Amino acid sequence: MRAKSKKHKERSRRRKMSPKLNEVNSGTSIIFGVLPVLESLRAKRRKIKKIFCSARKSEKRFLEIVELAKANEIPFATVSSDEISDIVDDDVNHQGIIALTIPASYYDSERLFTEITQKERSLAVILDGIEDPGNLGAILRTVECMGADGVFIPNRRAVGLTETVAKSSAGATEYVKVAKVKNLNRLIDDLKEANVWVVGTSGDAEMDYEDWDWSQSTALVLGGEGNGLHRLTAEKCDVLVKIPMYGRIESLNVSVAAGVILSEAVRQRKED
Amino acid sequence: MRAKSKKHKERSRRRKMSPKLNEVNSGTSIIFGVLPVLESLRAKRRKIKKIFCSARKSEKRFLEIVELAKANEIPFATVSSDEISDIVDDDVNHQGIIALTIPASYYDSERLFTEITQKERSLAVILDGIEDPGNLGAILRTVECMGADGVFIPNRRAVGLTETVAKSSAGATEYVKVAKVKNLNRLIDDLKEANVWVVGTSGDAEMDYEDWDWSQSTALVLGGEGNGLHRLTAEKCDVLVKIPMYGRIESLNVSVAAGVILSEAVRQRKED
Repeated sequence: MRAKSKKHKERSRRRKMSPKLNEVNSGTSIIFGVLPVLESLRAKRRKIKKIFCSARKSEKRFLEIVELAKANEIPFATVSSDEISDIVDDDVNHQGIIALTIPASYYDSERLFTEITQKERSLAVILDGIEDPGNLGAILRTVECMGADGVFIPNRRAVGLTETVAKSSAGATEYVKVAKVKNLNRLIDDLKEANVWVVGTSGDAEMDYEDWDWSQSTALVLGGEGNGLHRLTAEKCDVLVKIPMYGRIESLNVSVAAGVILSEAVRQRKED
Repeated sequence: MRAKSKKHKERSRRRKMSPKLNEVNSGTSIIFGVLPVLESLRAKRRKIKKIFCSARKSEKRFLEIVELAKANEIPFATVSSDEISDIVDDDVNHQGIIALTIPASYYDSERLFTEITQKERSLAVILDGIEDPGNLGAILRTVECMGADGVFIPNRRAVGLTETVAKSSAGATEYVKVAKVKNLNRLIDDLKEANVWVVGTSGDAEMDYEDWDWSQSTALVLGGEGNGLHRLTAEKCDVLVKIPMYGRIESLNVSVAAGVILSEAVRQRKED
């Protein structure tokens, strides 16, 4: 954590010093990479102030970015690749394009709850303490691709909708409804009360994930990278399921596990 | 790429300067994180020279590390967390424990080919240009968990068995057979000749992944993060399959796609 915060301070210092990019301040969020910038333009959920780009490419997706920026009167500036590298983290693959925008916003949790409980066959995801932005991004991308209804995350001890999450999600953060809640256990009680099945994942579960009837309204609960579901959260679930393991490593990466289970839910609903 | 190589130079400079960690030189590979260190001790595939640790924890996995190090007469030293942070990348979550070892080695490609073609129902994975170490690590973890037989990667323009890949794989790099090949297209020809079905993935495919009969010996071919399978590679495959998408984002993260398809293969074989 120490190294991270030092790096972030350093980055914000460099952002302030950059003459061409002086639009970048603390109220600004940066979207980087071809797909995330394109999806933010398509989705129109966040106001985009300016796009900086280091190379004019002939790729189809890139041309669509130029077109959408023009159509929406968004300033588009050409800068050097180094200038972009100077304001994003070293390990970030910005692909020569960034957009300055406002920070991503969360969906209202009560509204998401109402939508999910009123829908006939809803599919929601509850994340019990995901800390890695790459994992959260990949999960949001999967949730979007599988057409699930939304995601609940805790408002403490978990990663939120950061710039890195937006990049890892390939732009899915612009579409997926992500709501923060204070108390996941209370949310689970309320969902059960409203006839949504709450299914947790655990390596120790007796039921295989394919044996659950996913055609019913269900909220899937996934645990954090380190230790999985919190004990109390696991106890609150209607049922726990596992993905059978055939090797020596104990568990899949959490974003892969989300993909395996959500695709099974979708497969069952298609067959139904 | 520029920023990356600068960072790596900086790291190797700091490694050389570190007095306590002067065992770290260019012939040394570092395994970091609780699970990767534990799995390398369990697997015994790589000689471990020394373990550095910044905190004695009571966690079960941690105690097993201490026990295995003792049983195998591996030196175990306590250092500060900052000393560990100084020799790994800033963004690395080393969890206070690293092991000095030799670099990971690749499996002989001809031997893996023979094993796969002689097995009755083999399941192999061919990666056509994965560049992100987090993705390769997550795929290797999934391959191990699903009990698949091995992975072929190209020897150019792709990430190999780096320290970060070992960490992302949760230690699966210590078990999974990973072979480098010069020419993926020739490998595909040879596999087809030896009666292994070669199934590629493409968003434009007509067949859904669940409709393929995975009970047959199959090699699954996955494309790189940017543009998927190379055209010629896609043409060489016996069949192309897709994962149906229900949202606006075009595709899943490649490691999630690997998990979705491999778990379907395992599911079908169990039912068979």
